[in-house]
Amino acid sequence: MSLIRQSVVDMKGYTPGEQPQGDARVIKLNTNENPYPPSLHVDEAMRTIDSSILRKYPDPLSIKLRTAIADLHDCTIDNVFVGNGADELLALCTRAFVENDGSVGYFEPSYSLYPVLCDIRGVAKMPIELDDNLSSPMPTNADCSLFFVTNPNAPTSVLDSRSNVERFCSNFKGVVVLDEAYVDFSDHNCMDIALKSKNVLVARTLSKSYSMAGLRLGYAVGDAMLIEALNKIKDSYNLNAITQKLALAAILDQDHMLANVERIKTTRTRFVGELKELGFMVVPSQTNFIWAKPSRISAKEIYDELYKRRILIRYFPGKNTGDFVRITIGTDEEMDELLSVLRKLCI
Amino acid sequence: MSLIRQSVVDMKGYTPGEQPQGDARVIKLNTNENPYPPSLHVDEAMRTIDSSILRKYPDPLSIKLRTAIADLHDCTIDNVFVGNGADELLALCTRAFVENDGSVGYFEPSYSLYPVLCDIRGVAKMPIELDDNLSSPMPTNADCSLFFVTNPNAPTSVLDSRSNVERFCSNFKGVVVLDEAYVDFSDHNCMDIALKSKNVLVARTLSKSYSMAGLRLGYAVGDAMLIEALNKIKDSYNLNAITQKLALAAILDQDHMLANVERIKTTRTRFVGELKELGFMVVPSQTNFIWAKPSRISAKEIYDELYKRRILIRYFPGKNTGDFVRITIGTDEEMDELLSVLRKLCI
Repeated sequence: MSLIRQSVVDMKGYTPGEQPQGDARVIKLNTNENPYPPSLHVDEAMRTIDSSILRKYPDPLSIKLRTAIADLHDCTIDNVFVGNGADELLALCTRAFVENDGSVGYFEPSYSLYPVLCDIRGVAKMPIELDDNLSSPMPTNADCSLFFVTNPNAPTSVLDSRSNVERFCSNFKGVVVLDEAYVDFSDHNCMDIALKSKNVLVARTLSKSYSMAGLRLGYAVGDAMLIEALNKIKDSYNLNAITQKLALAAILDQDHMLANVERIKTTRTRFVGELKELGFMVVPSQTNFIWAKPSRISAKEIYDELYKRRILIRYFPGKNTGDFVRITIGTDEEMDELLSVLRKLCI
Repeated sequence: MSLIRQSVVDMKGYTPGEQPQGDARVIKLNTNENPYPPSLHVDEAMRTIDSSILRKYPDPLSIKLRTAIADLHDCTIDNVFVGNGADELLALCTRAFVENDGSVGYFEPSYSLYPVLCDIRGVAKMPIELDDNLSSPMPTNADCSLFFVTNPNAPTSVLDSRSNVERFCSNFKGVVVLDEAYVDFSDHNCMDIALKSKNVLVARTLSKSYSMAGLRLGYAVGDAMLIEALNKIKDSYNLNAITQKLALAAILDQDHMLANVERIKTTRTRFVGELKELGFMVVPSQTNFIWAKPSRISAKEIYDELYKRRILIRYFPGKNTGDFVRITIGTDEEMDELLSVLRKLCI
């Protein structure tokens, strides 16, 4: 008998984007982090934390934080789940909504964690390839228990229409998770669709628009029955005392988040214009990153050349993705430095 | 088709001990928290944290923290897993080491989370009742994939001998998790047994002896193959950036932890003496709590009367547990206040 479960032996773990530790010279445009710091309210909250609060267990139900999120989205606390990063809640969905002989649908390419979560859970994967124009061909008869729709999608940066999403959700028989990690950078979102449906959750994160990837805070909003199932099976104390306090401070400072988002969108517009002049085909982005296809040099070569110069972007080998690079929108200075290298490479 | 997995619908969630929020008048002796604050090094680490570190993803491999834990236990980083509380790692064990048709063994009573974890994972439970003298009747032929041995045990506070544990581990065909949450309050531990076995993990936590239940940091030490399986299936960024820093500070200040433990053991000795004078049968404790059977009034009545007076202890109804109360060792002042009430109740 093997000590380790066979499906775990057979699977490959998730490969996160490279996280160089402590090398300040790196320009890091590979994991869609926000280049600007979190709200000053987060700093203030941190300074008021006395380490003696660590002595006791945290609130297992994260009442204050969930109340603030419920207020933000005009729903009740019973509609809100909070997790140790959105990754925790995506993993919980595979355990709460899928039987052992069930399956999970998602688009390809989309968030590369989904197939790994299926392998961990040991259930069947039902990937659906994106159209050539990168739009999501919403299946009318997907026969699976759970479907992850990343909207806007990563790595393609494309936002699907509300009517498409709504039609898919009402036809689909299982649970739909609308993964809106990047939606604060988009023209519309589908929160209201989740709140009026029995089978739809929206997943959000503080990692992108709130500049807090290091805090690990994701949340889900939707029908109370679905939220209750997630709460039942989560680790009892899944959010530590500090995370609850700092996330609350960030959520309550919407002005800061919105201003940061505007700043990044302005840089995005300018950067996309410059890239086009260098011969890139750039997909219209609704996120804090762009998905672009170079014409004068291969995507892989661009990735490699930038890497040598300590500029990290993301390259995904493969049929649908291998001609593209994914570049996070950083500060204006970072994008200028990147552009000056690209100009040399693309001449 | 139900949206929610049938086993999740059918199960009951875990019930954590009550966590009153912000009522300073409560004397809280119900969840085995440490009454003394964490190391001052933790405070210092917190004061040096700049919120801009939250902007980036944390180190997914927690290298610095795992290195410090490896140094502490004289092993390598490949022998160390770190989790969002020991609860995360216990849950991961049910997913890494148990097939869908497998089963999980544990003693009864022991940590009441184990059966809940089995229900969440949807695998069979194999509880084994403790002897009448509360010792663990180590089964010689337990036929399950994973066995949780809480040592010292909760809620009984009893420490099993190293030879018993070692014999069990070498006979058992699956993975043994020695849950040593309370072992810093004990006369011996089994870390070396884990480090020389292929099938044994020791689980530890910063929640008790390090006074950091609010931080959520647990770790496992053992064979590199077992650790690798846990790392493969964990959430990629399971520990946030702040947790990694503060846990590191706590681990590096062993003197503070050891001094706190001595203080609590001294209080424990005195408190047990006083309880015996009040007619309690007190199980010799190797933990930061005691398991005691009153003689002049029922356990349930003691719990209720203390609750009315805002003193929280733990009472577990049931055949093996219903005659006992579990009381965390708090400060001397807290124990004196408790004793003064008990004196009135037990006369």
